[in-house]
Amino acid sequence: MQHGESIVDIFRHEQDYLNKVVRVQGWVRTKRDSKAGISFIELNDGSCLRNLQIIAEHENSGFRELLDRLGTGCSIGVEGKISPSPGKGQSIELHASQLEVYGWADPTTYPLQKKRHSLEFLRQIAHLRSRTNTIGAVTRVRNRLSFAIHQFFQERGFYYLQTPVITTSDCEGAGDIFRVTSLDPLKVRSTESEDVYRDDFFGRPTYLTVSGQLQAEIYALSLGKVYTFGPTFRAENSNTSRHLAEFWMVEPEMAFYDLQDNIQLAESFIKSIIEALLNDCADDLDFFNRFMQPTLKEDLERIVRTPFEVVSYTESIDLLKKSGENFTFPVEWGSDLQAEHERYLTEKAFQKPVSIIDYPRAIKPFYMRVNDDQKTVAAMDVLVPGVGEIVGGSQREERLDALLEQMQLKQISKEDYRWYVELREFGTAPHSGFGLGFERLIQFVTGLGNIREAIPFPRTPGHADF
Amino acid sequence: MQHGESIVDIFRHEQDYLNKVVRVQGWVRTKRDSKAGISFIELNDGSCLRNLQIIAEHENSGFRELLDRLGTGCSIGVEGKISPSPGKGQSIELHASQLEVYGWADPTTYPLQKKRHSLEFLRQIAHLRSRTNTIGAVTRVRNRLSFAIHQFFQERGFYYLQTPVITTSDCEGAGDIFRVTSLDPLKVRSTESEDVYRDDFFGRPTYLTVSGQLQAEIYALSLGKVYTFGPTFRAENSNTSRHLAEFWMVEPEMAFYDLQDNIQLAESFIKSIIEALLNDCADDLDFFNRFMQPTLKEDLERIVRTPFEVVSYTESIDLLKKSGENFTFPVEWGSDLQAEHERYLTEKAFQKPVSIIDYPRAIKPFYMRVNDDQKTVAAMDVLVPGVGEIVGGSQREERLDALLEQMQLKQISKEDYRWYVELREFGTAPHSGFGLGFERLIQFVTGLGNIREAIPFPRTPGHADF
Repeated sequence: MQHGESIVDIFRHEQDYLNKVVRVQGWVRTKRDSKAGISFIELNDGSCLRNLQIIAEHENSGFRELLDRLGTGCSIGVEGKISPSPGKGQSIELHASQLEVYGWADPTTYPLQKKRHSLEFLRQIAHLRSRTNTIGAVTRVRNRLSFAIHQFFQERGFYYLQTPVITTSDCEGAGDIFRVTSLDPLKVRSTESEDVYRDDFFGRPTYLTVSGQLQAEIYALSLGKVYTFGPTFRAENSNTSRHLAEFWMVEPEMAFYDLQDNIQLAESFIKSIIEALLNDCADDLDFFNRFMQPTLKEDLERIVRTPFEVVSYTESIDLLKKSGENFTFPVEWGSDLQAEHERYLTEKAFQKPVSIIDYPRAIKPFYMRVNDDQKTVAAMDVLVPGVGEIVGGSQREERLDALLEQMQLKQISKEDYRWYVELREFGTAPHSGFGLGFERLIQFVTGLGNIREAIPFPRTPGHADF
Repeated sequence: MQHGESIVDIFRHEQDYLNKVVRVQGWVRTKRDSKAGISFIELNDGSCLRNLQIIAEHENSGFRELLDRLGTGCSIGVEGKISPSPGKGQSIELHASQLEVYGWADPTTYPLQKKRHSLEFLRQIAHLRSRTNTIGAVTRVRNRLSFAIHQFFQERGFYYLQTPVITTSDCEGAGDIFRVTSLDPLKVRSTESEDVYRDDFFGRPTYLTVSGQLQAEIYALSLGKVYTFGPTFRAENSNTSRHLAEFWMVEPEMAFYDLQDNIQLAESFIKSIIEALLNDCADDLDFFNRFMQPTLKEDLERIVRTPFEVVSYTESIDLLKKSGENFTFPVEWGSDLQAEHERYLTEKAFQKPVSIIDYPRAIKPFYMRVNDDQKTVAAMDVLVPGVGEIVGGSQREERLDALLEQMQLKQISKEDYRWYVELREFGTAPHSGFGLGFERLIQFVTGLGNIREAIPFPRTPGHADF
């Protein structure tokens, strides 16, 4: 069929399009009729936040009967001339000479009427919510950030690595994980004990991955620099605005990088993708700035131009103790930092992103490199104002003996992780990496209160619709 | 730590590096010693197929004891001057002035010795196989194609859409699917019947997705053009060289595209990503050309410059009937094309890629648009010589009545797909899309015989290691 121009192109090159006849296709956001027999249609095609105003005169042959029924949600194709607009709010408009309706939307049943809907309500109609300004803008931001992630790593010689979703290992013993099975639970006889897996697809228990890191280490220790960008899973029963059962992670892993290199890479990475967003999604960010968080754009701009702070966990604890703040959770060397502590550090003490390094060994996973003090590990968490931890990473333990000791202490099975140990037996090398939770990043750059708006089809306890 | 240069950069800019002191880091592929007290080390850092030759003289302080033990698989850092090489096979080499060993590899236990290993053997050591030329080259090809996919769609205004892995729908009733559960099968009492799901994470049966298409249609029918690129799953018990239980799919979906537009997009897409590969992975393709398939590069080049054939299913059947070939499977209107039929069409009849369109309605899924003849649907399969079907797609049924009739005929539950039906009730529009199996594409462009080499960690019946 005859494709239209995309509306974003028309706005971007207004002068070129002026007085030209174009064809556009999209969905009617609103229609209003003047007494002079003219309909004003706000048309959106998803290519940008802005609508193109269509001027349709009822006297055009066949228009009247279409325009009488036309309303919010209808899908149409329009041909006509781009002209300067006398109206406020836009500099150009399209004067329709042809109008075609592809799909009607009955105003008595179409759930997305003109008025603003709550984000909670929109979640229940996830098949229609991408027709709203908010979710449209989220989609464009998500898309731009996704590509910026690939661009950042590709420009630096990293290889995109697709690590498996189905796995027999549970990475760091990360708690609640989903099982994958080809068996029908209604037909499993529980008396069979472990034999039950004999008939399962893989012949043993398998799970949904919680991280691609350990597999990424394999590729870093052979090909140098890699990154994953894919779905990861937690079966944690957390009904909060910050948790999803299925979410996307970015996990770079680099041979011959130590903790300092890792910190620098994470900082360049965060700045680079936010800069791409500021450059290419200005209208969408303006929208979030206006409706979600009034300081959003300046916050993002500040992050791009400010050097991140680097501070050790031990220093952080000192700062928190001396802060005079009345924290709910006690501040104690050896305990994990709580949200309130993180907020104090990023929002009050430093007022910018902070990389906290060298955490106590006891509270971090087995694969992190033990520091010379034997009490801390070469970990790093990057905290940002307003959101808290956005990146978590470390230098990995590349020394065979030290790794085996860590595994024993943390009760990690040497048999299950035989291959991981072998990476240290054969041509081991210093290496580092980090992980970034993609939906938390989306929350951060949009100011969205609930992570369920940051992903097209959120999976949370009791919810796996669409 | 002090990063080295990547070896690919040194080869790319040989003249600039000549007589400069550089630092490189990587893994020893081979070492051989001359009687004159010189070791020749072939160093690979994964940045390209080629090794950099390191010249290390034993008389350098501290070198001798390192060089005595150094062998295949060791991880080292070297500093020295890039010099013209008198040896054959390379124009430059590095004369080491500093040598550091990060990780040893005991030659009596390291599984990857100099000799060639079978791909079957390498699969059992998937944590080390990326250190081989073959899997290194596959990784670079996979990476380049992945990015080319993103580039192709981003340049054309498509949005990258991450569709869910966990789903309650089984798409087209695609057969065997994996279940996802937070329940321990050993603790489930089968007497509980459907109630068993009350305690499950999502409160009802959930599965691993077989396709993101239906969700992509949601976004196409609101934002215009989208594509997915993510993992999909089949629990089919197929132990063949063409099947994986977990594989990646690319699925573009476009509003206001009919079947013709879809065919053209698929052709441009395939050509564009293969062209990117020919331009940027020449050495890796030469390698596959040499060791896997002697006509590989010319086949790929021909595909880029040849217009694809478009032929209807009905015409294909006629061609096959008239072919005089002795097929194992009967050629009959209404049956699906078998591999032998596809090969005849691409390799003998047309000798190039062929888009076959307008398949019988009865053998295609419910969502394909019914043609005016009521007997066929607006489907398209793109077949390529040597591999067969690489892309499958269709124009989707956008008409409410026609969709409902299809669902009834194919026994698809209107309740389960309520949201899908509603997309046709509210602002429906003509739209189309297709899917490309990423690992089959990798097989096609590398000539790899077994799909298990086309993905880092293959999942097949009985195998989910690493």
